[in-house]
This record gives sequence, structure tokens and C-alpha cells, in this order.
Amino acid sequence: MKNIAVLLSGCGVYDGAEIHESVLTLLALSKACVNYQCFAPDIEQMHVVNHLNGEVSAEETRNVLQESARLARGEVSNITELNISEFDALIVPGGFGAAKNLCDFAVAGSASKLHPEVESFIQEFALAKKPMGFMCIAPVMMPAIFKSGVKGTIGNDSGTAQAYTEMGGQHVDATVEDIVVDMDNLVVSTPAYMLANSIADANIGIEKLVDQVLKMT
Amino acid sequence: MKNIAVLLSGCGVYDGAEIHESVLTLLALSKACVNYQCFAPDIEQMHVVNHLNGEVSAEETRNVLQESARLARGEVSNITELNISEFDALIVPGGFGAAKNLCDFAVAGSASKLHPEVESFIQEFALAKKPMGFMCIAPVMMPAIFKSGVKGTIGNDSGTAQAYTEMGGQHVDATVEDIVVDMDNLVVSTPAYMLANSIADANIGIEKLVDQVLKMT
Repeated sequence: MKNIAVLLSGCGVYDGAEIHESVLTLLALSKACVNYQCFAPDIEQMHVVNHLNGEVSAEETRNVLQESARLARGEVSNITELNISEFDALIVPGGFGAAKNLCDFAVAGSASKLHPEVESFIQEFALAKKPMGFMCIAPVMMPAIFKSGVKGTIGNDSGTAQAYTEMGGQHVDATVEDIVVDMDNLVVSTPAYMLANSIADANIGIEKLVDQVLKMT
Repeated sequence: MKNIAVLLSGCGVYDGAEIHESVLTLLALSKACVNYQCFAPDIEQMHVVNHLNGEVSAEETRNVLQESARLARGEVSNITELNISEFDALIVPGGFGAAKNLCDFAVAGSASKLHPEVESFIQEFALAKKPMGFMCIAPVMMPAIFKSGVKGTIGNDSGTAQAYTEMGGQHVDATVEDIVVDMDNLVVSTPAYMLANSIADANIGIEKLVDQVLKMT
């Protein structure tokens, strides 16, 4: 049976992994009758956001691995525990956690770097030529991984698309129902909540992404 | 267009609303092309659980409304703001938050009482004869609301089923794919993660519950 790694970045759209995108990813994998294992880095979140008013809770700290465990009902592993031979593909849901905790795109823009442990984790999949899927804002990590005009989408936000291009990627505009596939790099992306007006909207692109990633394994 | 209220109890299976059940509920409502609005009480959680190791974080406090906002991408209302005339039905996902924050079943068992604000909120739906759905452990709230041999299920856990009966309800054993419908009280229940071995399993009963609740509106 295929075994898919899912990389989480906390639990909540404004400071962690986008919850709907993460759950819809797990649902699509479960419906496809494949195994999955969630992973997250054991690091502090960049910050904690009160999701009721959007304000940063300056005095509060939360751990990315512990918060990701909420999404995974406790079943999450530290990214340092990866045994790449056990996995066929990697999927990375979005949410600001991808741009704040997995890399520093939220503050550094096109000068963004991946967190070193996250880079090592993802590079193992790239070096082993295993397919990967990135959704929402998470595709901004792709240029740092593939360094080769990698084709991807974050939807149609011109500022983010420009940053993606400046980092060396080739941005392709897409709708919420689209996926963009780079067959050379075996990577798939979809805009999800960069564009979705509803959870059912987001689910269309996410189901396509999961299906395409599984096809490429 | 129909408008459905969803009552959340935090964000995370061990101290709040079960995340998968909550998201799958929103997905089923969105796919059915109905509106929904999430609600939660503005109270402190009974406690905060580290979902990585299952231990209570004794020094930490979190607010149920703020944490529920994570699940709702910020779009959550205080239960005191309900205008019952705007809503056609209510759905309550499970998770320990239902038994720890919405009522005190987790500590009081069959002597459990609903939180007063939660009771007022749910009673408005009952008095207006609007259909309701409860999943996972949340059906333990039903006997306190309906007080009339209300038929419901929490799956097949004998201790919980016995408590449900002691509270005045009539428990019906069910599988994860089943719903139990009490047409007299217009209430539907399904075991979800009381029994589910996978998110796809849980989704089957949740889709049926949402479909049945919408049919009864």
C-alpha cells in the first residue's frame, strides 16, 4: 500500500497549517485507500494569532509539532524522524504556517529561506525523485527546493506570483479548481484558500492535487 | 437558502471540538449548497491538552470561542448572539470539548449538566422545533435537552451508553456508517470518531447525518 507523508505547520490558518486544507488532504488520501503519516517540525511558531480578532498574542508561544498533533489526532512525527524509504510522496497544505514556520516568506518575501530542518526533510523527497504536492501559499517553498524554473501556482495574486518568479520559479495563473503540474520536477500545486470562496471550492482542487500526486507515485 | 448553525467547543479532539468531524460537517453543508454559521461559547476551556503526548498543560488556558475561530477561519459567533429566526437547524460535532466545555459529562458522567449558556442556545432550537444533529460524544447532551426517552447513539461503548440511558435517553447501538433518527424530537446522531478507524469512515456517517438534518428542515 502506498504511504504518503503530509507536512503540517501548526493548526490554524493565521499562524499554522490551514485546517480545512489539511483535513481535506487527509480525507482524499483516506478515500483513495492509501496510508498517510503527518509530520511537523519541533520548533516554536513564529507567533500565535487570536483567530477571533486576527491580533498577535504577544505573550503566548506554541510549538508547531504539538499544535500539528491536534490536526492529526495525536498521530504526528517530528520531521527529523523521516525514513524516506517508507514514503512514496509528500503533500504540504497551506496556511500562514507554511510561510511563517516552514520558511520565512511572510517576512522575507522573495529573499525567503526554508527552515533548515524543513529543507532537509523536503530535499529527501526531491533527491529520491518522489512526487510532491503544495497547496495555497506553500508553493512559495518550491523555488528553493527545485532551483530550476519550477512551474507552480499560488492562484493569481500578482505580488506573490512576482515573488515566486524572482525566486527562480515559473508562475502559472490558475483558478481554485485547477492544478498545475510540473512533470520534470514531479510537483503539483493548487491555489486552495488563496482563492477559494468556500470549503467545497477548495476541496475540488485539493482532490485533484491528491489524485495527481498519487498517479505520479 | 437554508442556514445551519454549527456549535463548536474548541479546536482539538482532546480538549475541544474534533477537528475532522467539524471540517467534514462544514464540507457536507457546503457541498449541499446551504449557508452555515459557526458558534461557540465565550468561556475558558476545561483544560488544555498537549495533543502530542496526551498530557494536560496545567499552566495553560485557552478560550473556547477563540480556539473555535481557528476551525471557522475567523468566522465564528458567540452563542449569546444567536437570532434563532435566522437558522433552520443545528449540528454539534464531537470531540472531548463537547463533554468538557459544552457540558461536564467528562467528569460528572450521568449527573452531567449543560453549561447554562449552551443550554439556552440549544433549547432555542428545540423549542422552535428545528432539527438537530449530534455526533461522536456530543449525543450525551441530548437527554438533558429533550427529557423524553430521546433516541440516540454514541456507537457501542457500553459505559457511555449506560450513562446515556441513566440520564433518561434511549440508547441505540450503531456502527460508524449508521445514523439514528428520532423523528419525534427531530434529532439525528452518529458515532463518528467514537468508532471510526479512518477519516473516510467517519465521513460516511457524518454525510448521512448532515443529509438527514437538511431533509428535516
